[in-house]
Amino acid sequence: MKAMFDRFLFGGDWNPEQWDESTWERDIVMLEHAHINEATINVFSWTQLQPESGRYDFATLDRIIALLQAHHFGIVLATSTAAVPAWMSREFPEVMRAGADGVRRVFGGRHNFCPNSSVFRKFSHALAGELSRRYAGMPGLLVWHIGNEYGGGGGMCYCDRCAEAFREWLRDKYGSVAALNEAWCANFWSHTVTDWRDVVPPSEYADGIGTEKAVISGLLMDYRRFQNDSQLACFINEREAIREFDATTPVTTNLMGAFKDLDYFQWGREMDVVSWDNYPGMDTEPSYTAMCHDLMRGVGGGKPFMLMEQTPNQQNWFPYCKVKRPGEVRALSWQAVAHGADTVQFFQLKQSLGGCERFHGAVIGHDGSEETRVFRQSAALGEELKDLGRDVMGAQTRSAVAVIFDWESYWSLESCVGPTTGFSYPQEVHRFYRALHKLNIPVDIIASTTPLEEMRRYAVVVAPALIMIKPGVARTLEAFVDEGGHLVTGYMSGLHDEHDLVIPGGYPGPLRELCGVWVEEIDGLAPEESIPVVFNGDGTTTQGTIVASIMHLEGAEAVADYGGEDFYAGTPAVSANAYGDGRAYYVGTPLDERGMDMLIKSVIRHAGVESIETPDGVELCRRYGDDGRVFTFTINLTGAVRGDMQAYEVRVTSDSA
Amino acid sequence: MKAMFDRFLFGGDWNPEQWDESTWERDIVMLEHAHINEATINVFSWTQLQPESGRYDFATLDRIIALLQAHHFGIVLATSTAAVPAWMSREFPEVMRAGADGVRRVFGGRHNFCPNSSVFRKFSHALAGELSRRYAGMPGLLVWHIGNEYGGGGGMCYCDRCAEAFREWLRDKYGSVAALNEAWCANFWSHTVTDWRDVVPPSEYADGIGTEKAVISGLLMDYRRFQNDSQLACFINEREAIREFDATTPVTTNLMGAFKDLDYFQWGREMDVVSWDNYPGMDTEPSYTAMCHDLMRGVGGGKPFMLMEQTPNQQNWFPYCKVKRPGEVRALSWQAVAHGADTVQFFQLKQSLGGCERFHGAVIGHDGSEETRVFRQSAALGEELKDLGRDVMGAQTRSAVAVIFDWESYWSLESCVGPTTGFSYPQEVHRFYRALHKLNIPVDIIASTTPLEEMRRYAVVVAPALIMIKPGVARTLEAFVDEGGHLVTGYMSGLHDEHDLVIPGGYPGPLRELCGVWVEEIDGLAPEESIPVVFNGDGTTTQGTIVASIMHLEGAEAVADYGGEDFYAGTPAVSANAYGDGRAYYVGTPLDERGMDMLIKSVIRHAGVESIETPDGVELCRRYGDDGRVFTFTINLTGAVRGDMQAYEVRVTSDSA
Amino acid sequence: MKAMFDRFLFGGDWNPEQWDESTWERDIVMLEHAHINEATINVFSWTQLQPESGRYDFATLDRIIALLQAHHFGIVLATSTAAVPAWMSREFPEVMRAGADGVRRVFGGRHNFCPNSSVFRKFSHALAGELSRRYAGMPGLLVWHIGNEYGGGGGMCYCDRCAEAFREWLRDKYGSVAALNEAWCANFWSHTVTDWRDVVPPSEYADGIGTEKAVISGLLMDYRRFQNDSQLACFINEREAIREFDATTPVTTNLMGAFKDLDYFQWGREMDVVSWDNYPGMDTEPSYTAMCHDLMRGVGGGKPFMLMEQTPNQQNWFPYCKVKRPGEVRALSWQAVAHGADTVQFFQLKQSLGGCERFHGAVIGHDGSEETRVFRQSAALGEELKDLGRDVMGAQTRSAVAVIFDWESYWSLESCVGPTTGFSYPQEVHRFYRALHKLNIPVDIIASTTPLEEMRRYAVVVAPALIMIKPGVARTLEAFVDEGGHLVTGYMSGLHDEHDLVIPGGYPGPLRELCGVWVEEIDGLAPEESIPVVFNGDGTTTQGTIVASIMHLEGAEAVADYGGEDFYAGTPAVSANAYGDGRAYYVGTPLDERGMDMLIKSVIRHAGVESIETPDGVELCRRYGDDGRVFTFTINLTGAVRGDMQAYEVRVTSDSA
Repeated sequence: MKAMFDRFLFGGDWNPEQWDESTWERDIVMLEHAHINEATINVFSWTQLQPESGRYDFATLDRIIALLQAHHFGIVLATSTAAVPAWMSREFPEVMRAGADGVRRVFGGRHNFCPNSSVFRKFSHALAGELSRRYAGMPGLLVWHIGNEYGGGGGMCYCDRCAEAFREWLRDKYGSVAALNEAWCANFWSHTVTDWRDVVPPSEYADGIGTEKAVISGLLMDYRRFQNDSQLACFINEREAIREFDATTPVTTNLMGAFKDLDYFQWGREMDVVSWDNYPGMDTEPSYTAMCHDLMRGVGGGKPFMLMEQTPNQQNWFPYCKVKRPGEVRALSWQAVAHGADTVQFFQLKQSLGGCERFHGAVIGHDGSEETRVFRQSAALGEELKDLGRDVMGAQTRSAVAVIFDWESYWSLESCVGPTTGFSYPQEVHRFYRALHKLNIPVDIIASTTPLEEMRRYAVVVAPALIMIKPGVARTLEAFVDEGGHLVTGYMSGLHDEHDLVIPGGYPGPLRELCGVWVEEIDGLAPEESIPVVFNGDGTTTQGTIVASIMHLEGAEAVADYGGEDFYAGTPAVSANAYGDGRAYYVGTPLDERGMDMLIKSVIRHAGVESIETPDGVELCRRYGDDGRVFTFTINLTGAVRGDMQAYEVRVTSDSA
Repeated sequence: MKAMFDRFLFGGDWNPEQWDESTWERDIVMLEHAHINEATINVFSWTQLQPESGRYDFATLDRIIALLQAHHFGIVLATSTAAVPAWMSREFPEVMRAGADGVRRVFGGRHNFCPNSSVFRKFSHALAGELSRRYAGMPGLLVWHIGNEYGGGGGMCYCDRCAEAFREWLRDKYGSVAALNEAWCANFWSHTVTDWRDVVPPSEYADGIGTEKAVISGLLMDYRRFQNDSQLACFINEREAIREFDATTPVTTNLMGAFKDLDYFQWGREMDVVSWDNYPGMDTEPSYTAMCHDLMRGVGGGKPFMLMEQTPNQQNWFPYCKVKRPGEVRALSWQAVAHGADTVQFFQLKQSLGGCERFHGAVIGHDGSEETRVFRQSAALGEELKDLGRDVMGAQTRSAVAVIFDWESYWSLESCVGPTTGFSYPQEVHRFYRALHKLNIPVDIIASTTPLEEMRRYAVVVAPALIMIKPGVARTLEAFVDEGGHLVTGYMSGLHDEHDLVIPGGYPGPLRELCGVWVEEIDGLAPEESIPVVFNGDGTTTQGTIVASIMHLEGAEAVADYGGEDFYAGTPAVSANAYGDGRAYYVGTPLDERGMDMLIKSVIRHAGVESIETPDGVELCRRYGDDGRVFTFTINLTGAVRGDMQAYEVRVTSDSA
Repeated sequence: MKAMFDRFLFGGDWNPEQWDESTWERDIVMLEHAHINEATINVFSWTQLQPESGRYDFATLDRIIALLQAHHFGIVLATSTAAVPAWMSREFPEVMRAGADGVRRVFGGRHNFCPNSSVFRKFSHALAGELSRRYAGMPGLLVWHIGNEYGGGGGMCYCDRCAEAFREWLRDKYGSVAALNEAWCANFWSHTVTDWRDVVPPSEYADGIGTEKAVISGLLMDYRRFQNDSQLACFINEREAIREFDATTPVTTNLMGAFKDLDYFQWGREMDVVSWDNYPGMDTEPSYTAMCHDLMRGVGGGKPFMLMEQTPNQQNWFPYCKVKRPGEVRALSWQAVAHGADTVQFFQLKQSLGGCERFHGAVIGHDGSEETRVFRQSAALGEELKDLGRDVMGAQTRSAVAVIFDWESYWSLESCVGPTTGFSYPQEVHRFYRALHKLNIPVDIIASTTPLEEMRRYAVVVAPALIMIKPGVARTLEAFVDEGGHLVTGYMSGLHDEHDLVIPGGYPGPLRELCGVWVEEIDGLAPEESIPVVFNGDGTTTQGTIVASIMHLEGAEAVADYGGEDFYAGTPAVSANAYGDGRAYYVGTPLDERGMDMLIKSVIRHAGVESIETPDGVELCRRYGDDGRVFTFTINLTGAVRGDMQAYEVRVTSDSA
């Protein structure tokens, strides 16, 4: 596809308003030395732009923009609405968020607004509109950036206004309390609703079991949907204000990978381009980062995305923050590009002197020197991206394998009271993804509701822990397999309908016939436990963890059986079912890495999907240009020599297809 | 004694109101296939029965009952008052409980009422009365079941109304603030009360140190007593409403074993039959379960009890929930019967589709199939209980050994600030109980205030960690030993009077002369530490943990000495004192399993109590019928072969005495 | 200097108001048997002294004092204001403290007042004044003791009144919101203040990240300063009331060693004599206790101090409380004297029967016996101190080495968001102190703002983790080294100015030239990680932990380099810089014990400071009398034989210099 920008954006967040104006020009000159060509500005300046309720002051922003324009920087212009001004919280206390204890916050922090506050909606709409009126069409303006990391401030809002809006939302959805009671199975523990006013948000003082579970999980699921909608409405509210004066400049907000609270597939549909912030911690596996890139690309419908933030060196907000090793930032940057990023942007271009992020890495450190390792490596990366990155822009990925990521299954799985508290949904998705990644098999990450016409593009679809089966999904998966597709699913899948009620008739519910198995029981394993899983054929023994599905074959054949001494030893642990022209696999237990590798290898061999061998820790990805060029990225994502590659070595080659 | 029911009840909780009425009959037919003959109904249906303040609607319940009657099921009819309707919490917010932070809950959860709410008292009295008026004398009605698991919703209420009622309660108890100040040693940290209004509940914002401790522990003890009384008053309030229309049907509520917050000995006196819910976790030792059965039987004055709930398969609310192994539920059921249960009831007969217990085991699972392992095992158990269980009903246990379980010592020990936080009171009771259990010695669990005429029935009385000595107790124990009884007590016993004040004059206070020892100091051990305890005679070395009493013999002889290198090595760790015609043992430190086994073996040999050897993990119990028949239950409570018994094997034999 | 008292005070807290008056005389007689000659009284008696708002009642206190006078006891008379009466909290709720959740406490606990409550200030001033009017000049009165362990009740107050007073405090400090915004770098996350009313305390509902960190750390630093000032104003408020009637009797309050919330150097300036409460736990290293003694002596300007509290046996409020081993209390007492204590006082003389400290050790235990180990050891210690302690009184310590302890660096280091959460400031000070202690090198602990004329008394100054450099400090340190002094500093030092803003220009900021190093990056290590540090010369390899400064020599020479495999292996880990006539050391990483020992040995050898070898765990200290006598204290602080010393053995010798 066509590249979105006329150059490969290399830049990031710049907050000159924290500094004396005399320092600005020197910053820009230094950044130019590092080949930086873009600045993301105005992310947190609301009070400066609007020092009181009835007055705007754009003078400082004007001067910042003028300087950037003079230096021909691209500009990602944020709307500054992710942290409300202190005066607003003082004059309109209702603008502030309330936590799960129901207590409304006073001033402080960020992402501190109630998403249903009409005051917030009014003021943020007005500010976004003013910015658009003033800056639409100006030279250098590349992207509008609304708010910042929506939802990142610590959970949902539980204030009275949200409660009121939630009741409206439910009334629209269900029409009657009778329908609501049925959807929620509300007769459980006499939770029957006889009046809309009976509904209260599932806080810790109400129906919540902590904040991640609730007695009536349908209530929690709906509250999550409602809060997601509310936050998204805030985004749309500002986008519409911008569009009053600027019909064309792309609009985005920065997402956060596998962040739990927002269903990003819904967000992706409202954004012109997806952008996201990539912050792997020191224990994050490179394959997990890869998965997040693919997820973000999938959220954007497969188009290239912006890497809006990453750190040029260590983070500061992990408990323990390592500096990035030489070459590590380069490798992470190219990994992003390999998975579809068309920008490389940093938080932050210059380290602040105050505030809780002052020890977060930056291109320009506290020393203000170009002699630092970080500055020099940033500059080298900029040099490299200027040409090579430019070539890649717009090129697309091609995947024969899709992995389903379903935010409602995320919420449902982690809110499930029994049989285990051991699940993290993204980690279960990653358990399957990692095996594909090790084989250098390109993956698209798709929604569970992806229609058949899109799903049939893939040879293999993987649906890990797809606990919630929304209407039509089972039928699509059946048709996909029937036509010859290969489906891999398993433990915890198929249990719930869209109301988070169990689908009766034997697990995995609507996937039972497709998978040819009946899961009679789901055994929970203690954290230190595992259960042997013996693969048929060569008898390799691997281990299952967390849960073990005790299942009966109903047409499927066993791929592996449980070993060990337990009463269900010798029964199937993994199965494959011929269904129409395809096959459906059911994985009864979270396999360890070795077991998952064995399984996935077998699946892709059957499905005829090509894999590529590389040394352990070396990733190989491709992007395909409209002009037929194929870019191959080979990246050693480890800090050690791998095969003929040095630690963190990156190789990018381009061929004509 | 005479059996309470005309058949052995095999059944449990059934909640048809969560389902479409068309499914009910099929459920009943399936349950009949499993030999189920009883249903516990109406446990959580308040809103359905009373959809608004001024209106009742018994139509659904009528139909449920009619169906059960048509199938000749026994009915345990609950009063539905353990979860208040949403409309009630909305219209009368004072009905809701407040937590230790003083914040009143809004709607959600269960056990969510303030026990001193006059609104709750009025509405629950009215509903229980209506139910009794309507259903008293109906065919099939076997038991009234009031509320559900009182106190299970997470702690005491700290609302203003409770505070007010507490002040009244104190005024009644103490008469004057001067008496109150003296009882509480209130001059400590100037906590002197000069007006009743000065007293506030020991919340975290007041005198509480967390919720389990307080600066003035007498305040906390009294608040616990008051809250226990308040909850019990709720039970009595409903019982009296039932008795207006039904003078004879037994009334119960389901207790929870060694649950901390309620003094079940007081509850037992108000209940016609004790019933309880047995939910061992995957780390619960079988001897702990046995102890809880004996405790519940003791609470009921030694009469047979109802096993109101247990799971037919895995629980769902533990962090990690194993399925029950083949035979395990059968073994647990027979263990209950062996210890005095005259019913075997499940939570639940049918798995719900929604609500936070939907993954809790049930006779009828989500699959609705009779082909499941759980259904088949349930049916086999039902078959077996039909005859064999019927025979056993009414038969009683006979024990030569009693163990004291004192709820106020429970509260006092765990609220004690120093010398250790390492104590769990029930675990300390179990430490002694387990040694008796391994020897298959029948045990009665009794209150500390048991009068001498009852206590003298026993050859041995064990009083673990009896930190609070209520008036008269020391004298009773002295008389018991003087007459030839054997008393085993020890660490932490005898420290406090009924106001939780230390009894001066040297530990163990009023037990000092009886035990013939003076405990000068109580050393605290770190969690990873232990101290050698060397038994005289054969020199066997065992270990003490948590605390070590440093003591002087004052007439007693040493049974074991501390070993090791510490300064009190060589001083007595366990002692025995001849007192009158009996002996009093003082165990200075929580002995490990081996040490406790040695001690208890020696005690029972001296006391002439008979023990029975069985393989490790195999329990042998007896019940004695009025007709002279003796039932012997031999149960392998482990998942492994033991001697000639298979895993979880159960043998029941009956002989004439 | 002249001894403050005419005898060596041996005594402690006595609370006869908790007991029947008939017991008092017997207590005193017993205490006399133990050579006790002092009682600290009236610490928690406010309600007794003032049973209602408008009435005092000193009758009980009069009788207590009369008895003590009759027995010629010295009296430390407290003002009873550390726990407000219940009636006061009921009639004036504003008197109570609010926690970090903003909720005002109700009655309970202690240290429960808001330090900005005008009600508290008025009542406490009045009571202190009444006490002084009544008892000033009476026989036996030795010291006034105001309040008790200020700040010990669990954190700062966050009530509305404090918020209001804080705004006033800020207005006085900064003059304008513009100056405030600059000092706080408030444009970060748009925290700009446009009105003083915008400022709210950094609670968890505001800008706090927990209670120890905040988004705007300058706000948190100022709130800590303000709260410290507020508490100190409470102390001064009472002191002034006392001084209206008593111009001469020394006034103190009991401090708590390295307690975080109060800047004791400020307190020391307001107290006539420093007193403190020494409560080592079972894992406290003896060198840490020694450091606290030196800190308390330093807070008092180097003068002898009072050991106001220690336990004669086990504490009760640790999770696990060991009894003190034979000789241990004696050794701890003499360690205090060796470091400058001129009193040995206990909490408590008699064990209470109620209240949460009833299991805290006491000279007279619950047994009321003189036959206890504790009583006998106390008596022996009293006998010993009577003469030997008397001789030592007034003698001073002499140190060639000073260690800087800076409360604002304490707050700043532990509030720093990145690069690690691994730091405890006192532990980092102790890391350096311990190495000096092992060499028996006397140490003074001084403030970072100590003027050059005082600092130049020392050959070596150690400044561990001095993250905040207040105005003038860097210049003083430069001058100190320039004149020939030896400075040891390192990791995390020099980062922040007095507003907690990073000092730009390369770490360690204003110490960069002095140390001759530039720290380019600070790597964070995981808790289980360490990095090899190889000393030049003999190549000894030690380990660094928590962080590793990656640094460039700018004139300094490397003392040790990083080893291992990381990319900065081979770069300097520890450096020394010749500067003027002295040397400045920079320690790049928290060295393990062995590494720190090597470094400190090298430093003191270069500096010509004398060290004394003793067996491991044996401490040797000296005090110097005005008359030329030198007291040498040799104390085995371990429970094992060390060289020719028994466990906990103490030797005190006196020589003429």
